[in-house]
Amino acid sequence: MSELYAARRTRLRDRCAAAGDAAALVSRPANVRYLTGCAPPGAAVLLGPDGDRLLCERPLSGDPAEGTPAEDLEVTVLPTREGDPVVAGADLAARAGADSLAVEEHHLTVARHRALAQVAPRLRLADLACAVEQQRFVKDEEEIACLRIAAEITDQALGELLESILVGRTERHLALELERRLVDHGADGPAFPTSVATGSHAGRPEHPPTDRRVEEGDFLSVRLGANYRGYRCEIGRTFVIGTTPADWQIELYDHVFAAQKAGREALAPGVECRAVDRAAREVLEAAGYAEHLGPRTGHGVGLEIDEDPRLSPAAMGKLDACVPVTVEPGVHLPGRGGVRIDDTLVVRPEADGGPELLTITTKELLAL
Amino acid sequence: MSELYAARRTRLRDRCAAAGDAAALVSRPANVRYLTGCAPPGAAVLLGPDGDRLLCERPLSGDPAEGTPAEDLEVTVLPTREGDPVVAGADLAARAGADSLAVEEHHLTVARHRALAQVAPRLRLADLACAVEQQRFVKDEEEIACLRIAAEITDQALGELLESILVGRTERHLALELERRLVDHGADGPAFPTSVATGSHAGRPEHPPTDRRVEEGDFLSVRLGANYRGYRCEIGRTFVIGTTPADWQIELYDHVFAAQKAGREALAPGVECRAVDRAAREVLEAAGYAEHLGPRTGHGVGLEIDEDPRLSPAAMGKLDACVPVTVEPGVHLPGRGGVRIDDTLVVRPEADGGPELLTITTKELLAL
Repeated sequence: MSELYAARRTRLRDRCAAAGDAAALVSRPANVRYLTGCAPPGAAVLLGPDGDRLLCERPLSGDPAEGTPAEDLEVTVLPTREGDPVVAGADLAARAGADSLAVEEHHLTVARHRALAQVAPRLRLADLACAVEQQRFVKDEEEIACLRIAAEITDQALGELLESILVGRTERHLALELERRLVDHGADGPAFPTSVATGSHAGRPEHPPTDRRVEEGDFLSVRLGANYRGYRCEIGRTFVIGTTPADWQIELYDHVFAAQKAGREALAPGVECRAVDRAAREVLEAAGYAEHLGPRTGHGVGLEIDEDPRLSPAAMGKLDACVPVTVEPGVHLPGRGGVRIDDTLVVRPEADGGPELLTITTKELLAL
Repeated sequence: MSELYAARRTRLRDRCAAAGDAAALVSRPANVRYLTGCAPPGAAVLLGPDGDRLLCERPLSGDPAEGTPAEDLEVTVLPTREGDPVVAGADLAARAGADSLAVEEHHLTVARHRALAQVAPRLRLADLACAVEQQRFVKDEEEIACLRIAAEITDQALGELLESILVGRTERHLALELERRLVDHGADGPAFPTSVATGSHAGRPEHPPTDRRVEEGDFLSVRLGANYRGYRCEIGRTFVIGTTPADWQIELYDHVFAAQKAGREALAPGVECRAVDRAAREVLEAAGYAEHLGPRTGHGVGLEIDEDPRLSPAAMGKLDACVPVTVEPGVHLPGRGGVRIDDTLVVRPEADGGPELLTITTKELLAL
């Protein structure tokens, strides 16, 4: 594994060198984790003339959820709580003879950037911009393996809940129950705050769980995901509570299912992101739901639950093989409820069977 | 309540005017909440020449945990997801004729600050620094009332757990159970990730819960807190599992109890923060535990779980009446366990009875 992290750092270092920067300082937590295997709070990783170094505010906690630093990486813990790892990194880079340092201007605050400039006034500060995020776009097989496990854990947690009694329980309790089961099945934690939405809440794109109780006849939509070794996936399913869905529920479900299927089937290397969004969106527009749609159909996942690419009408990029994304269209009818169906898939060439579905819980409309 | 928020904004506006700034843009979430009653993700509040305005990235979610904006406050939701409220705020300020704008340089990234400067090139950008945090230091009675309720909820959740069976349960499960009970008793959520540490983990200052099971004879230390309307408090208690604590456990507990008592009794308006730390620390140093102590004895609480003041050896400030703080000394003996005792109190004048204890769960050593 150490070689993996070292190779990622080398690739970044080469890119910086090509841009004229002898050194780089990475501080966004997901990016630090990508390059070193761990992301203690406040840590930064310096890719400097003298080699690579992880700078921490305090001793590593041993919390497995924080990850473990690659064995060959130098780790420096700053004394007491007074130091800023980013300032320490700039100081080290300057002393090692770097004349320029690329930093993450989309992460560092103005105050920290000034402190950095003050400690190393002769260092030319450049912008690393989203170089690490771009490197993270295409996942390697180890990363996809973690996402597969995260999806398995997620499917297990959801599956167990479906076997339990739901009527009468609150959205909040169901969400907490799901999160407990994620951890029981081996997750480091939930990938994001679990959403459970029942009755007229169902299908809302972002619904924080409330004390509303599940009732017979409700649509119930849930959205959850596991964080496994930092890798986060996501699943969303909608069910009907009780024995027989109403006609309007079956009809709405069929439309959203068709839209999500169209979105999934549009995934292939080289396809424009906006085309995937279009494929799902036009099914729902044709069914008359244009005003009830959200701004986007899906997004990338990895060390963050919401990464590039974004599958939206204005998205400018294209997909590649080994890019994991969600496809999660939905319709919410205020006062009535709605349906949202969400999978995590990995883009694969058609010759290899098309997109790899990670979240395999059935998408058939279940009456629970 | 609207008048409360308007008064806070007026006080901040007056301070900026005195510093020569006609307008201010606040973006740190806790500060936005303090000034407006709510803090939707990414929102910013502009105190401009034309009045005050809350700028949001998206429509308010209705999540009570996000708060509710003061009724008299103008709220603007930016179209789609393309806008940055901070950039929109700068644009509005410039159009309203402000010649300077104070921003939170300890919050805004370099990239956002550049975008702001680009949209309003004639606006002189100044640093608001920690003006809002300073205003938040002394709490008013409404804030203290929220902290009292948060503490009550926290005591209830802890009390219920103490009546349940603990042996054989994992740290993780106990932590999740405590968090569920916080929500059941009315919390918006936990104030911070709950810590449960058993056996040789006990007494660690920051211990993320593991799958370790509680056993007879263990020290068990827990640390939890409720978030009520944004206000966060904290309690920490250490217990012994089983019928009879060992002599070394009783002795260690007595020392930490005495240190925490000394820290609590040192709290008074006008007292130096480092003196409170000293009062607790010297008890433990005299007992021979100098190398096992943490860097600080406590910290302020409010809309954030960790605020000014910091009660540490190098702290420069003084306490005031109506400042809520934690007093949380502890000793961790690697391989054996330890004790940590943590209360949230409000500094009050001696004439009013001295510090007001919010977290009232007994501090007597209980064998559970």
